[in-house]
Amino acid sequence: MAITVVGSVAYDSIETPAGRKDRCLGGAATYFSLAASFFTDVRVIAVVGEDFGPEQEAVFRARNIDTRGIERAPGKSFFWEGSYLDNLNEAKTHNTELNVFASFEPKIPDAYRDSQFLFLANIDPVLQRRVRDEMPHVKLVAGDTMNYWIKDHRDALLEVLKGLDVLLINDTEARMLAGNNNLVQAARGVLALGPHTLIVKHGEYGATAFFSEYSFSSKGESAQHPFRAPALPLEEVVDPTGAGDSFAGGFFGYLASQRELTPAVFRRAMFYGGVLGSFACERFGTERLQALTRKEIDDRFQIFRELTHLD
Amino acid sequence: MAITVVGSVAYDSIETPAGRKDRCLGGAATYFSLAASFFTDVRVIAVVGEDFGPEQEAVFRARNIDTRGIERAPGKSFFWEGSYLDNLNEAKTHNTELNVFASFEPKIPDAYRDSQFLFLANIDPVLQRRVRDEMPHVKLVAGDTMNYWIKDHRDALLEVLKGLDVLLINDTEARMLAGNNNLVQAARGVLALGPHTLIVKHGEYGATAFFSEYSFSSKGESAQHPFRAPALPLEEVVDPTGAGDSFAGGFFGYLASQRELTPAVFRRAMFYGGVLGSFACERFGTERLQALTRKEIDDRFQIFRELTHLD
Repeated sequence: MAITVVGSVAYDSIETPAGRKDRCLGGAATYFSLAASFFTDVRVIAVVGEDFGPEQEAVFRARNIDTRGIERAPGKSFFWEGSYLDNLNEAKTHNTELNVFASFEPKIPDAYRDSQFLFLANIDPVLQRRVRDEMPHVKLVAGDTMNYWIKDHRDALLEVLKGLDVLLINDTEARMLAGNNNLVQAARGVLALGPHTLIVKHGEYGATAFFSEYSFSSKGESAQHPFRAPALPLEEVVDPTGAGDSFAGGFFGYLASQRELTPAVFRRAMFYGGVLGSFACERFGTERLQALTRKEIDDRFQIFRELTHLD
Repeated sequence: MAITVVGSVAYDSIETPAGRKDRCLGGAATYFSLAASFFTDVRVIAVVGEDFGPEQEAVFRARNIDTRGIERAPGKSFFWEGSYLDNLNEAKTHNTELNVFASFEPKIPDAYRDSQFLFLANIDPVLQRRVRDEMPHVKLVAGDTMNYWIKDHRDALLEVLKGLDVLLINDTEARMLAGNNNLVQAARGVLALGPHTLIVKHGEYGATAFFSEYSFSSKGESAQHPFRAPALPLEEVVDPTGAGDSFAGGFFGYLASQRELTPAVFRRAMFYGGVLGSFACERFGTERLQALTRKEIDDRFQIFRELTHLD
């Protein structure tokens, strides 16, 4: 089933111990879409400036991603500049230019309205909420956010959380959102705010899903225990930018491709999230995702199984 | 088969967000022995002072741990005082008194000499090496170390590593030992120093085993991929002291209890390590390990499986 994603399509200038790359195509919605496109139809809602040309458009087209919801506005696209020189797990932001994103008003193309899955990538919670409200009949809604919204736009974010099934954030964000340093207690606090499932991303240590009693479950299977997906120990992390969004894309894309949302399907989705996240780190920007094949994904899924399974 | 362990038996004064406990029984060899004793016979080599009485002795006896190698010396036992107020993953040391440990000369009782498994807990590498050399015929040797020895006693430590099959250290120590921030590259660097297996402990994120080509393998199974064992997301970490040593004890105890060391046995041992480490955190000092039963261990092993397995 099709996913609609709203979020940023942007340019990033990135410096890591492996080198530097200027103005590569980036943005949460970009990474998410590319990752999810290996599993299902993806439709993007975003805004870009006049610097977004046929070359960038072609990146989406090559993966059959629907770009009719990418609005062209006068001015420049969202731009982010950051580095990971000291710590590959946390970007240091040097510059953020909202540009056309400052006045973004998401518009949902009619052709997107039958989407059964909705992903609210990390943007202003007011916009996340607006898109959510305009698509009330979706089967599953997941979303991301970041420290900035948690700290300074808490009320708007709490409104978004009420309408989410699955929230994907990192350890620091989970602890900050719940105001609790213990991850299990923090998870319970976050789940009380709305989502029935919380996925906490641990970077190189994988991700843990925590479930409320209303989580994915059927046929007598219990989904109450947390579930932990590994990350692949990587020989070289070229660029971690977009790894979390690629995790979300792999995770949500796989879910959307399945007929039924059972706990077993959910666990596999967590693994696919880890797989896509690991590929994203292997080259700068979206390069690795653009060159990826479904066979590579499934081979790595098998490695993830060997990495964690007893038998 | 029996394990001989050499290391510290000590008193710890510990402060955590859950409270404070003064002079509880501690030391790496204590935690290791208690954890391993659920799987096999354990024999301890250590030194204690006149403050080590029948009450402490009884803790070992209750788990059938052989204490004939615990020497009584004039003076006080090793004492450590630390806190985890800001960060449960890393102790802040307030005071270390070596006391009788300053002049420790490990003596191996004759009754220990048929041990097939040897664990060199975190002590002066010169002493680790001496014990290793006196037990040349053991089937498997594992050991631990810490930042202090890596930084300031590197040459002595390198001699120890040459005689180790399995090294268990944490992320920071692995990176420091190899002089490399990438964990996979660091692991390769450490494996080149001697051990055929490196277990990197990630605290609340579990542990990863890296293998050289000479690792555990048989019957056509390959053990070349890393293997990652989870940690249990804990509602309350009362006291993380000894969690790493308890991991080592659960891991090595299970290995020693098995007739053959296959990759499958090794993976299960990693899980048992995580299980024992998780229990150790649930109360102050050794309290939880003292009260533990084998049934609780096996029930939690099952939870670890559910936490990570797809099917």
